[in-house]
Amino acid sequence: MPADSDLIVPNGEIIGVEKDSYKTLAVRSNHEDFIRRAVDLLVERVVFGRSSRTSKVVEWASPDEIKKAIDLKPRDSPVAHEELLKLMADVARYSVNTGHPYFVNQLFSSVDPYGLVGQWLTDALNPSVYTFEVAPVFTLMEEEVLREMRAIVGWAGGDGDGIFCPGGSLANGYAISCARYYFYPEIKTKGVYAVPRLVLFTSELAHYSTKKLATFMGIGEDNCIMVKTDINGKIIVEDLELKIVCAIEDGASPFLVTATAGTTVYGAFDPLVEIAAVCKKYNLWLHVDAAWGGGALMSKKHRHLLNGIELADSVTWNPHKLLAAPQQCSTFLIRHKNVLKDCHSSNAKYLFQKDKFYDTSYDTGDKHIQCGRRADVLKFWFMWKAKGSEGFEKHIDTLFDNARFFTDHIRQREGFQLVIEKPECTNIMFWYIPRSLRGHENEPDYKERLHKVAPKIKERMIKEGSMMVTYQPQGDLVNFFRIVFQNSALDHKDMVYFANEIDRLGKDLIV
Amino acid sequence: MPADSDLIVPNGEIIGVEKDSYKTLAVRSNHEDFIRRAVDLLVERVVFGRSSRTSKVVEWASPDEIKKAIDLKPRDSPVAHEELLKLMADVARYSVNTGHPYFVNQLFSSVDPYGLVGQWLTDALNPSVYTFEVAPVFTLMEEEVLREMRAIVGWAGGDGDGIFCPGGSLANGYAISCARYYFYPEIKTKGVYAVPRLVLFTSELAHYSTKKLATFMGIGEDNCIMVKTDINGKIIVEDLELKIVCAIEDGASPFLVTATAGTTVYGAFDPLVEIAAVCKKYNLWLHVDAAWGGGALMSKKHRHLLNGIELADSVTWNPHKLLAAPQQCSTFLIRHKNVLKDCHSSNAKYLFQKDKFYDTSYDTGDKHIQCGRRADVLKFWFMWKAKGSEGFEKHIDTLFDNARFFTDHIRQREGFQLVIEKPECTNIMFWYIPRSLRGHENEPDYKERLHKVAPKIKERMIKEGSMMVTYQPQGDLVNFFRIVFQNSALDHKDMVYFANEIDRLGKDLIV
Repeated sequence: MPADSDLIVPNGEIIGVEKDSYKTLAVRSNHEDFIRRAVDLLVERVVFGRSSRTSKVVEWASPDEIKKAIDLKPRDSPVAHEELLKLMADVARYSVNTGHPYFVNQLFSSVDPYGLVGQWLTDALNPSVYTFEVAPVFTLMEEEVLREMRAIVGWAGGDGDGIFCPGGSLANGYAISCARYYFYPEIKTKGVYAVPRLVLFTSELAHYSTKKLATFMGIGEDNCIMVKTDINGKIIVEDLELKIVCAIEDGASPFLVTATAGTTVYGAFDPLVEIAAVCKKYNLWLHVDAAWGGGALMSKKHRHLLNGIELADSVTWNPHKLLAAPQQCSTFLIRHKNVLKDCHSSNAKYLFQKDKFYDTSYDTGDKHIQCGRRADVLKFWFMWKAKGSEGFEKHIDTLFDNARFFTDHIRQREGFQLVIEKPECTNIMFWYIPRSLRGHENEPDYKERLHKVAPKIKERMIKEGSMMVTYQPQGDLVNFFRIVFQNSALDHKDMVYFANEIDRLGKDLIV
Repeated sequence: MPADSDLIVPNGEIIGVEKDSYKTLAVRSNHEDFIRRAVDLLVERVVFGRSSRTSKVVEWASPDEIKKAIDLKPRDSPVAHEELLKLMADVARYSVNTGHPYFVNQLFSSVDPYGLVGQWLTDALNPSVYTFEVAPVFTLMEEEVLREMRAIVGWAGGDGDGIFCPGGSLANGYAISCARYYFYPEIKTKGVYAVPRLVLFTSELAHYSTKKLATFMGIGEDNCIMVKTDINGKIIVEDLELKIVCAIEDGASPFLVTATAGTTVYGAFDPLVEIAAVCKKYNLWLHVDAAWGGGALMSKKHRHLLNGIELADSVTWNPHKLLAAPQQCSTFLIRHKNVLKDCHSSNAKYLFQKDKFYDTSYDTGDKHIQCGRRADVLKFWFMWKAKGSEGFEKHIDTLFDNARFFTDHIRQREGFQLVIEKPECTNIMFWYIPRSLRGHENEPDYKERLHKVAPKIKERMIKEGSMMVTYQPQGDLVNFFRIVFQNSALDHKDMVYFANEIDRLGKDLIV
């Protein structure tokens, strides 16, 4: 072993020092000094400095302004540590403060301190999770956490299988893949050509990923049949059955229903027990996309929303949403033990050697469609350790309590109108009506004018940086706000703040 | 705005304190104290404490031993900060030290200090990259880095399009998706049913992901036609053309050739210029999987290995491999400007609203099959800033110099036999022959006995923790070692160390 062995830095980065003097204590100390200064900046200015209510949610700048403020282009020559620290500060400055209590714009928010530390540890260990050999702890940890999640879903003993995947969209894609392999295993070798025309069913309000992935997977948009929803955004089970019957008459082969537990916009929970009965009747795979609503399973008070999920063949559940784990933490859970592996394994001999000296059933990577894969489990596991299931339960109960309080508050408040009277999840949809529009509800251009309100308020809000909430149209409904709660540090006063702020920004608006 | 606004912690974590006293300075300080202690542990013990040559690459423990040492199961109740710190230390202790100079087991290794800081900053900002609104800096940064990479590939002005994706496997999947949409756009709506039986071609030594993704995408393994390779592992162009002709005669429709620049095991570079000519002749999409070898494009001395890559329609290039960016950093680059978007976009109105107040062409998320998506760009961009293109070039040149030195060293060393006399990339394949086998080359059971050598040495190596190198069989060839260099902190003395160590572990082996 070379003599200077204990002075090595962790990477062969050789800029700023002569090659010959590279492996010296000075270089290591130089790197260590930089890392320590960078970490100070991270903790002080990024994590804590931006999370107070008085800081801005976003410091708005146009694309051109950002390009001017930060030299984004890679260059031939290196820059010095001082400049790197300035770049870090600038990147943070112009980035949206998704950890801010008033970032209520997406189905993720907040930066959990334990999740963050878990993520940082993962980065420092820089694993890729495919074999026990290379990622022993992560492999076992994934299995343990996935088993616990399956048990919470309600599958006896936590039996089945599962994976962490890069986002709920791909998890929904795995459902399509497993379902069609389950009914038509010859698809693996022969492709879609060898089987009848497959059709799947999902709600017209389901997340777009089912259609997108079905298209990526060769099924095509036309073979994704959209089921009608009721006024609360839930699948109409009669329409589902009607469409299945029609598809069969049309010569197609139904194989999958993807129901949703917590739709993206309305937060609606499809009636799983009834849907499961239809799936049983027609021998279809039932997948439940609980990417958003899955977290409610952690609460004794709210898990009834997902009644029937235990009847599903597979489930998508993203802890980075309602449970506020850092981006990205998505899981695909499946009740059938071997389908994932049988469907996706390719037995690459350079990676999944069978003559290793340990039990290679722990080499779980072959059931994924990824090869190299980040470890998304540790941050979530670490949060779970830090809070316990009890902590997650309190978190969920707080979110639902806040959502209820906010809904009640705006229901009786002038200028606000709920889109759905009793939202089921923690995303609340509403229109804000500026004074200039109030009393004009029956005029022919009312809807057209109302449609312009949310974008205008959003622009003002972002330019001030006072909060961040999204809006969208839906079907015949013109643009409405959708506020999303996943940060249990918020309280009732914050709920009033959100309404006050939208009122302040919008009341004088002329559209 | 509530009065206590500047005391909020970044997350609603409420364990260990009463709800009423939650928003107090004490809690924030409690979290800040924990983060600081955790960071100290990370920097001291994980990043620097494990990267010296005298530390172990791995502290081997069986699955059962790890389960005994770390309580992996999630529990109802939270654990205290002290216990969390211990858990962190234990996770690190039993994890493979992929940043160790003697971890030469995979196509990734080392922890670059700038890459790590870039990753930590990303985590602290916790973005999801789909819209400019939510991820302004990351969106622009991705476009800038991808443009630069396309320019390095050799596409004029860096024109075209590209995405960061979760691994090279999915990048190779995007190539399949884009190619079939390019020739058969009706596939998006009607699925594979509406088009002829598609077949693609790749090398028998190509990474398994092309076949795996083709299967996931409904094409099927049988429609992935494997082209023969020569003794150096390169595609035989005549066999490619022959197989294309045969497929057409067979009634199939060829649409894609995936060539490889740096194969997984041999590090072979397919002859891209000749393959491009065949693709032109038969009007096929040329995808180059340069996940592994792409980094060589940064070196004036070595980029000739990829001559012809500028003729490709699309390219996979993983900076987390040869350029040693942290896991995971994979890109898919495409010469055609609109195909990615046209092929994958679904125009979800809740996310990609067109009535935003800024230029929504910056909302690039719809061209991905993911919805929420981690930002993998910053760590790489930050490394690029810190080193400059010059730094990457020196890094690459050092790797190739080491690989050449190692090859020359073992070529003349007793007990070592090269699988390929002149490996092209920085992965080197060789057999080690214990004394007991030397001189027995002509005996009938020689190969069978040689096959057992590498697994035995690997077991000893892992149990001692002195280095970590992989092995595999390939076709008719029995188990051989494949050592991989991506850490430019290594020098010639380390090269000798690797050979010495394998010799030490294996010379007395009786198989």
